[in-house]
Amino acid sequence: MPIRRITSAIAPEPPPERWSNCLLVDGIAYISGMVALMGDEAALAALDEYDQAKACFAKIRGLVEAAGGTMDDVVKISMFVTDIGNGGDKIWRARREFFTGNFPASTMVEVRALASPKTLIEIEAVAHIGKGPR
Amino acid sequence: MPIRRITSAIAPEPPPERWSNCLLVDGIAYISGMVALMGDEAALAALDEYDQAKACFAKIRGLVEAAGGTMDDVVKISMFVTDIGNGGDKIWRARREFFTGNFPASTMVEVRALASPKTLIEIEAVAHIGKGPR
Amino acid sequence: MPIRRITSAIAPEPPPERWSNCLLVDGIAYISGMVALMGDEAALAALDEYDQAKACFAKIRGLVEAAGGTMDDVVKISMFVTDIGNGGDKIWRARREFFTGNFPASTMVEVRALASPKTLIEIEAVAHIGKGPR
Repeated sequence: MPIRRITSAIAPEPPPERWSNCLLVDGIAYISGMVALMGDEAALAALDEYDQAKACFAKIRGLVEAAGGTMDDVVKISMFVTDIGNGGDKIWRARREFFTGNFPASTMVEVRALASPKTLIEIEAVAHIGKGPR
Repeated sequence: MPIRRITSAIAPEPPPERWSNCLLVDGIAYISGMVALMGDEAALAALDEYDQAKACFAKIRGLVEAAGGTMDDVVKISMFVTDIGNGGDKIWRARREFFTGNFPASTMVEVRALASPKTLIEIEAVAHIGKGPR
Repeated sequence: MPIRRITSAIAPEPPPERWSNCLLVDGIAYISGMVALMGDEAALAALDEYDQAKACFAKIRGLVEAAGGTMDDVVKISMFVTDIGNGGDKIWRARREFFTGNFPASTMVEVRALASPKTLIEIEAVAHIGKGPR
C-alpha cells in the first residue's frame, strides 16, 4: 500500500505545499503537530492550556478515526508547550478526556515559541491503526 | 499482536492516566522521554548532565530489555537539554557507556525547560526489537 | 533484515561513537537531525534560514536516496528553529524546492539553541522507503 493522505473536517488542512496533517503508511499514521487554531490570535488568547490541549486532541482523534482507527491505537505523543510549570497539570486533565487504559508513550518539553504568539501547546502523534487497545 | 505496555523496575511508572514508559507494537518499542529522577529536586540538583544522561539511558536499556531486545536495537534517540553548550560533551560521554557499533540516529536540541527545574536532560527512544546490531 | 547504516557523501558523518546520520530497518529510514554545517561558525553566519534549510533538506535527500528511496517516501519531518517568527516563511520556501504532491507530516517549534550558536535550524526525518509518492 502506498502512502495515503488522511484528512478530517475537524482538522483544517493548511494551504498547499505546507504539510499534511496526517499520512498513513504501512499501518502507521503520522500526525503533524496540531495546534488549537491557526491564524486566529484573538480567539487563541481566550484559550488556556486545557482548552488548547483539548482542541489538539480532538483534531488528533478526528485524524486517527479518519485513518480507520481509534484513540486506542495512539502509541506516542510529543507535547511542546510554552509554559511547562503552568501548563502541565492542565494538559494532564485534557489528556484524561481522550485516552483510557494504558496511556501513550509521551514526551513533554517547554520550547521558546510555537506557531504563533498565543499558541501555548502543539501536539504530534503516532498511531498503529487497528493495533489497540493499549 | 496488539499493543503491549512494557515495564521495568529500573524505570518507575508514573501514576495512572499519565503516560506509559514504553509501548511495544509491530516489533517497535516507543519509549517515553525519560528523566533521571521524577519529583526529587534535591537529589536531581546533585546530578550534572553526565549523571542525568546515564540515568536516562539506564532506564531506556531496562525498558528495551524488558521488551525482549538490547541497546543494539535502538534506532533513534531524541535528546532535549537545557544547556547544550555545557551539556553536549557530557552527554556524549554517557552515551558511549551504553552504545557500541553504529550509534543510533539522534537529535539534540536545547529547550527552555523540562519536567522540573533541576531536570537537565530528557531522552526518548525508538527501538526495533531483535533487529540489531546496528 | 538487520539494521543498516546509510551514508551519503553529501552528509558528512560525525566522528565515531556520536550518532549515525541514517539507519534503515524494516523499510523505515530514521534520519538524524541535520544541520547546515558542523563546526564552521563563520560559514554558518553567512547563511539565513532559507540557506540552512536547503542544506538540511539536501542532506536528507542524499540519505533517503542512499537508502534506495526518494523524497516522495518521507512521511514525517521535525523542524527545530531558533527564530520561528523570522524563519518560518524562509523554511516554507526551501521546503517547496524539495517536496511535491502531499507534503510530509510536520512539526516546527522554536527552541532556545541548537548544535552551535549560528545554527538556525535542525531537521530530522522519517521515510518509508519505496512507499511514495505521497
